[in-house]
Amino acid sequence: MTVEQFADRHIGPGPDDERRMLEAVGHGSIDELMDAAIPEVIRWHGTLDLPAPATEREAIAELRALAARNTVAVSMIGLGYHGTHTPAVIRRNVLENPAWYTAYTPYQPEISQGRLEALLNFQTMVTDLTGLATANASMLDEATAAAEAMTLARRASKSRSTVYVVDADALPQTVAVLAGRAEPLGIEVRVVDLAVEELPAEFFGLHLQYPGASGAVRDHAPLVAAAHAVGALVTVAADLLALTVLRAPGRIGVDIAAGTTQRFGVPMGFGGPHAGYLAVRAGLERMLPGRLVGVSRDAAGNPAYRLALQTREQHIRREKATSNICTAQVLLAVMAGMYAVYHGPDGLRRIAWRTHEMAVRLAAGLRAGGVRVDDVAFFDTVTAVVPGGAARVVAAAQARGVNLRLVDADRVGVSCDETTTVAHLAAVWAAFGVDPVDGDVERALPAALTRDGDFLTHPVFRSHHSETAMLRYLRRLADFDYALDRGMIPLGSCTMKLNATTEMEPVTWPEFAHLHPFAPDAQTAGYRELIGQLEGWLAEVTGYDAVSVQPNAGSQGELAGLLAIRAYHRDRGDTHRDVCLIPSSAHGTNAASAVMAGMRVVVVGCDTDGNVDLVDLDAKIDKHRDALAAIMVTYPSTHGVYETGIASLCAKVHDAGGQVYVDGANLNALVGFAKPGRFGADVSHLNLHKTFCIPHGGGGPGVGPVAVRAHLAAYLPGDPSGARVQGAPAISAARYGSAGILPIPWAYLRMMGAAGLARATGVAVLAANYVAVRLREHFPVLYAGNKGLVAHECILDLRPLSKATGVSVDDVAKRLIDYGFHAPTMSFPVAGTLMVEPTESEDLAELDRFCDAMIAIRVEIDKVASGQWPAGDNPLANAPHTAAMVAGDQWPHPYPRSVGAYPGGVDRAGKYWPPVRRVDGAYGDRNLMCSCPAPEAFEG
Amino acid sequence: MTVEQFADRHIGPGPDDERRMLEAVGHGSIDELMDAAIPEVIRWHGTLDLPAPATEREAIAELRALAARNTVAVSMIGLGYHGTHTPAVIRRNVLENPAWYTAYTPYQPEISQGRLEALLNFQTMVTDLTGLATANASMLDEATAAAEAMTLARRASKSRSTVYVVDADALPQTVAVLAGRAEPLGIEVRVVDLAVEELPAEFFGLHLQYPGASGAVRDHAPLVAAAHAVGALVTVAADLLALTVLRAPGRIGVDIAAGTTQRFGVPMGFGGPHAGYLAVRAGLERMLPGRLVGVSRDAAGNPAYRLALQTREQHIRREKATSNICTAQVLLAVMAGMYAVYHGPDGLRRIAWRTHEMAVRLAAGLRAGGVRVDDVAFFDTVTAVVPGGAARVVAAAQARGVNLRLVDADRVGVSCDETTTVAHLAAVWAAFGVDPVDGDVERALPAALTRDGDFLTHPVFRSHHSETAMLRYLRRLADFDYALDRGMIPLGSCTMKLNATTEMEPVTWPEFAHLHPFAPDAQTAGYRELIGQLEGWLAEVTGYDAVSVQPNAGSQGELAGLLAIRAYHRDRGDTHRDVCLIPSSAHGTNAASAVMAGMRVVVVGCDTDGNVDLVDLDAKIDKHRDALAAIMVTYPSTHGVYETGIASLCAKVHDAGGQVYVDGANLNALVGFAKPGRFGADVSHLNLHKTFCIPHGGGGPGVGPVAVRAHLAAYLPGDPSGARVQGAPAISAARYGSAGILPIPWAYLRMMGAAGLARATGVAVLAANYVAVRLREHFPVLYAGNKGLVAHECILDLRPLSKATGVSVDDVAKRLIDYGFHAPTMSFPVAGTLMVEPTESEDLAELDRFCDAMIAIRVEIDKVASGQWPAGDNPLANAPHTAAMVAGDQWPHPYPRSVGAYPGGVDRAGKYWPPVRRVDGAYGDRNLMCSCPAPEAFEG
Repeated sequence: MTVEQFADRHIGPGPDDERRMLEAVGHGSIDELMDAAIPEVIRWHGTLDLPAPATEREAIAELRALAARNTVAVSMIGLGYHGTHTPAVIRRNVLENPAWYTAYTPYQPEISQGRLEALLNFQTMVTDLTGLATANASMLDEATAAAEAMTLARRASKSRSTVYVVDADALPQTVAVLAGRAEPLGIEVRVVDLAVEELPAEFFGLHLQYPGASGAVRDHAPLVAAAHAVGALVTVAADLLALTVLRAPGRIGVDIAAGTTQRFGVPMGFGGPHAGYLAVRAGLERMLPGRLVGVSRDAAGNPAYRLALQTREQHIRREKATSNICTAQVLLAVMAGMYAVYHGPDGLRRIAWRTHEMAVRLAAGLRAGGVRVDDVAFFDTVTAVVPGGAARVVAAAQARGVNLRLVDADRVGVSCDETTTVAHLAAVWAAFGVDPVDGDVERALPAALTRDGDFLTHPVFRSHHSETAMLRYLRRLADFDYALDRGMIPLGSCTMKLNATTEMEPVTWPEFAHLHPFAPDAQTAGYRELIGQLEGWLAEVTGYDAVSVQPNAGSQGELAGLLAIRAYHRDRGDTHRDVCLIPSSAHGTNAASAVMAGMRVVVVGCDTDGNVDLVDLDAKIDKHRDALAAIMVTYPSTHGVYETGIASLCAKVHDAGGQVYVDGANLNALVGFAKPGRFGADVSHLNLHKTFCIPHGGGGPGVGPVAVRAHLAAYLPGDPSGARVQGAPAISAARYGSAGILPIPWAYLRMMGAAGLARATGVAVLAANYVAVRLREHFPVLYAGNKGLVAHECILDLRPLSKATGVSVDDVAKRLIDYGFHAPTMSFPVAGTLMVEPTESEDLAELDRFCDAMIAIRVEIDKVASGQWPAGDNPLANAPHTAAMVAGDQWPHPYPRSVGAYPGGVDRAGKYWPPVRRVDGAYGDRNLMCSCPAPEAFEG
Repeated sequence: MTVEQFADRHIGPGPDDERRMLEAVGHGSIDELMDAAIPEVIRWHGTLDLPAPATEREAIAELRALAARNTVAVSMIGLGYHGTHTPAVIRRNVLENPAWYTAYTPYQPEISQGRLEALLNFQTMVTDLTGLATANASMLDEATAAAEAMTLARRASKSRSTVYVVDADALPQTVAVLAGRAEPLGIEVRVVDLAVEELPAEFFGLHLQYPGASGAVRDHAPLVAAAHAVGALVTVAADLLALTVLRAPGRIGVDIAAGTTQRFGVPMGFGGPHAGYLAVRAGLERMLPGRLVGVSRDAAGNPAYRLALQTREQHIRREKATSNICTAQVLLAVMAGMYAVYHGPDGLRRIAWRTHEMAVRLAAGLRAGGVRVDDVAFFDTVTAVVPGGAARVVAAAQARGVNLRLVDADRVGVSCDETTTVAHLAAVWAAFGVDPVDGDVERALPAALTRDGDFLTHPVFRSHHSETAMLRYLRRLADFDYALDRGMIPLGSCTMKLNATTEMEPVTWPEFAHLHPFAPDAQTAGYRELIGQLEGWLAEVTGYDAVSVQPNAGSQGELAGLLAIRAYHRDRGDTHRDVCLIPSSAHGTNAASAVMAGMRVVVVGCDTDGNVDLVDLDAKIDKHRDALAAIMVTYPSTHGVYETGIASLCAKVHDAGGQVYVDGANLNALVGFAKPGRFGADVSHLNLHKTFCIPHGGGGPGVGPVAVRAHLAAYLPGDPSGARVQGAPAISAARYGSAGILPIPWAYLRMMGAAGLARATGVAVLAANYVAVRLREHFPVLYAGNKGLVAHECILDLRPLSKATGVSVDDVAKRLIDYGFHAPTMSFPVAGTLMVEPTESEDLAELDRFCDAMIAIRVEIDKVASGQWPAGDNPLANAPHTAAMVAGDQWPHPYPRSVGAYPGGVDRAGKYWPPVRRVDGAYGDRNLMCSCPAPEAFEG
């Protein structure tokens, strides 16, 4: 009996579509096409050893069974992960809404105003609460944010010291990640218990936790002054909820604040994803890593948001990089910002005080029962001293369904949060063997450390407090944006494929959402089994021997992979191997990651076909033979080509003692047909948010597992909690990184099965070649491999047209908005081009709609070329056209309104209208403004 | 410690808003306002005896605990309720999407094109599958659809007979409902086993089940011919999934088809809600009850959808009514239609054949094991004969997690569906004590009864088969519509308040979604406790003694209430009491329900203040004293006024031996301040989709519980399954009606508590008075009660302006779309007026935005009056303005485009654009077309 296959829903083209596409590209079948496209030297002819594909219902049932093996206990562990109530209106309308979660990174600001506004709210929330000038949006987690703060301090400090002082009351996972990041950069992390010890004489930076991991709230002002006195910068890793009632770090001159916004409505998710934050004082804003949203203006002079200082990111400064951060945690940052919007300052303060009062009451009960509690100010966390009895208390609490923090044999940490109830306190008291206490308590924060002054004064934080108002605000912003739920996003190298609902649904189940990353193993069996299976399947798909899902972005996977190579060489005594070869066409993060891994980047040229120049490779190997650590290449190449030289390249590097890193960004062109781990690579990172269906979320979350051959397995990222022996430094704050979204790729692999995955790859390659064939006569297609075939993407060269007409790649990208599309990747990897990756999920109707639009745009360019339309005033130059523009009382343009508004066959009734005209990025960079503008700015 | 109150999220105005609104209406507090507004004679001064309000988290936790007490077994009971897989993309993007579920009934077609198209898909699906000409959208369930078919047959048949023949193989709940509906109308339902018995000589209609409840698929052609020979009409209650492979009823001349579309992706929900359907052959379309979507054209001549033949519904023909159907099951009809869109004809056939093959295999196994199976053709259901052993088999299956149908002591029914697996078959075989069988089976449907010819040929059923395509189609349609997630829908008498996410979430939990209405009590303990609590709380809120949630729409609640009154009189020997007094201002359904309950309607006039004319009431009572059965009034009145004469009215009717029915449509003005059951009424129906937060779903589902005082409790609706002794006829197909959405009002009541509910009422009345005060000088406000106050809604009189300027109430309603609003209720209860009900959920900013728009419209009307704009060509006459219109190359109108497009302070970036211009309803009624038009119709 026939059963519905998920692959038939995931893959856009049906049998009829497929036949017509094959006809157009001139191949008889997908197998034949793939035989022609993929060099035999890398081709793998087996069938992936994966379980037979499950239906959507079966996959959900299996996931429910796995979920049932997790135990949702009350978490009072703290350490940067807290229980929180996600407002249902935010969960349903952001986290469970494809309009938000299928959006791409807001590189096209005109069609991203909704999430840009949401991120500006996030930045405003962070700057208001920290009292600093500028915040980015966003970091991956608190530990990596702290690491970025450390390197920022290194760049900004005038001190010559290599010492970075970390207070002993910092979160242990932060210390672990700092140490891992510091070592390759020649930084010495020195942990000092500043409650009792002195600062060293020389250091370039100081990291403080606020409140401390122990719960202690100390006055850091003297330490800040002392650090500044020796030219050091001070980072405070601050809890934003605490900051609603505690003095802001900015008030005592702190330079940098870093942390997480998890407890602002984002589920713990067994470690992630959550949005980390990073904020700096005035003067440091241009050194901020990561994405920064700012206010600029559009062609009509109206305020418009866009990513500010984009040049910082787009090339990640390559070998001059100081950060490789690329993917952010946009979806979670949106949630955290909306949590602040929904509660407003009064609501946040109410939550903070209630949390604090719970902790005070808890401490009172412990003290009344004779348990010693550290005599220090605290916000939400209490450290109790039970000499020799800590493990017993923790076990007793666990038996009552409450997880506490086992600090050491004598001390237990108990952390309160928004979800804490009196019943939870009673369980804790019982675990300590003390009697419950009743009655009111006094708040117990020293006045000097209490916040004064208002915050979140912008109207956005004071207008949307009813659910109705919040719902409409979320809808309004979502409607501004173009995401996959409207149409194709043909972004080269980003694989914007279907994010199936069945893959997404488990993410918000309580059994996956509400686990603390340090929960006892007995409570996380389902999660760990899921992760183990996923790692195994990913190893099978890639041909590697071991996989770690810990890296919570592609950039982190790169770093983890390079650190593994580095550690491998060092363990073998090859400490001198520090050269990383990188082709000139590589993604900017590659070089940045190499720098962060302590390597020297040496660029290898490309030949005129866009392939790695094997002659230059030989020369570079020769020159750096003894120092050669690795080569880092993308396959298929960033030009979208299956390079035939790959096997030879691997061999050359191996012969010289180097390791081969294959960037997995383009794995969607390989799955089921070739395995990097089999054709010569030693390590890859994957992008689960590209090939394996984690949605882009408007710019994150991503997951970037690192996969290695057996000889590198021992160097995979270690456990940041320090609870387990670690072979290598931790790369993220949590052992399994963004575990909360791993059900997505699990479900994808489980439902596609071997045949489905291979068919997806084949259709993706077919679709790219179909687009190339249809557009070739209108735009030159740059680069091709075997038999003139591209891989899963194709590059359209606009340079000759641009040169002849002045019509830029930007003009074409913006004009595509008028036709109802998101632009392809612009000017990467080649300036002046568009890179198109249609993916397997787009059906023929959508592919044709896109090709028709591109062909129509070519006709428009010709009208500019022929002088029919003036160069400066034509539908391309004026794109995108807003409704306000085409409905304006004046129409001074030399083409009809209808041509501006409804080009080609655009669906009139369902047309997507961008809310702003073309955004002037440079204006905003000259006039940097990165928090919410006054509402008056939008008038007129 | 302060805890967040849900009421603060549900109620729009915060303390500041409230203060400013009170200032405007001239009262010091809400209590003072309510003291002034509500006549003391009905005022109740207590505090509702409800549990203290739960937070959203607590309510969810309690609901999870209740859900956990339900058992989701494999259901093979059949009888019109089948397991089905709701495609996840439909569940998330329709059933869980506020853009769909918060929409109102599509009375304003210009801003409802999305759901109208979805309903047209539904109608096309039904007509294609049944082979009939016209289908409506939609009926409440199969049993009530069958009842409507019976009365339709009565109207259409030329036979003088009062006999309606029902085949014995009809669903038992259908027979129960038919019998209940027939009796007051003087129809005799005669159940005949047509497999063995003859048809009677005379009858006006014949009801056949296809396939039968037993599973039998018989050739009904001879019966149809025989019925037609005596002038009777034939209704076939057909299973749409079966019809994808079985001969369509239309092919054998059937007149009417009725049934349910539940198994097209709509969860069973312990009985509902699901969309029933009703389809008729050509010639009967203008007799169809319920809502009918049709194609017409807009002001630009483009195709546009709207409700066809609206005059049929809008007045429900009052005392000439033949149906009281008003609310439909739009949200569920949308889902069922989308299920067909997603699967397409091939997918549906595949599901049907697989289901059939499971049943064949099941039967083969039973026969191989020596169990007798009826030797008749079947589609999905098998009746097995186990003399004396049926109960044992059913119990054995239950022990294996499978529910079967206990037909009688000797027979067991087993029904297969889309979710049936081989493991389920194995459990059934084991329960029968037979061995499993392997191997392929032959399909076993007689060729003569097999479907030929194609169906669902329209492209919409052949284009959206990938999840990506489906997602985009759903988004595109949703974007056409204006729902509560965009802005206010100030519909008088419809109480469009917040439908909170927390209220909605449990609806799609498996433990609430997947229960069969006839599941054993042991599996439904959680549901029944929830329902018991809800009925108790509703009794407390209304002051009645007993409540039944069975009626699945307000109209059904009315009928149930009137039938209770009728039965009460008859039990007391007052068989002559058949007059129902109804004020002239009443909602049309009131009279219609009275007619259906076998009563004669006598209209009572209203005085110039809009109140019931007590003098006329005395006269009518005098005239009909001995025949007086009841009076049916709405309170507050449909004019939005707390009539002071209500107590006196009740007393007069009681004195004459009549019963008092208070229509609960306006209960939102009473909750916490007055109880109908205490101020003189004997019975009310409530609208859980008005006062108690069930979303309108675009026109349904609704739930209309009936609440009665103790003397009527015995006459509440009985159990349609016949499994329990019934005191009165069943009113719906399922014992608890639309049980699946009862968690919504449960959560609302649980989270609001007594104080929250009362505050909601107060704020709703405050908001209506605020709007009245702000608009009074621009539009006369019709009617007021105590101290010039309105209740929860106000009527704006446009008649003088219309007379002076020609600007119609329609013009104003459509112009409001340009301002970003859904129009208020038009011309009800008074022609030429708008009735505004803001509800408590709108905050002051939104109320002001609405008032500002109305005031700006008044200024526009004045420009027409002054001749500044010509009467036929002005922004009012041309409203609504589409983007295509204002962006058109021509602009022949005497006002600027900007005035058309962006009047007042409309948010330019976030403007909602209607997809069509004003719809010409009359054109479509003259040229009736009620299925999907060819795509070419939309070109140009």
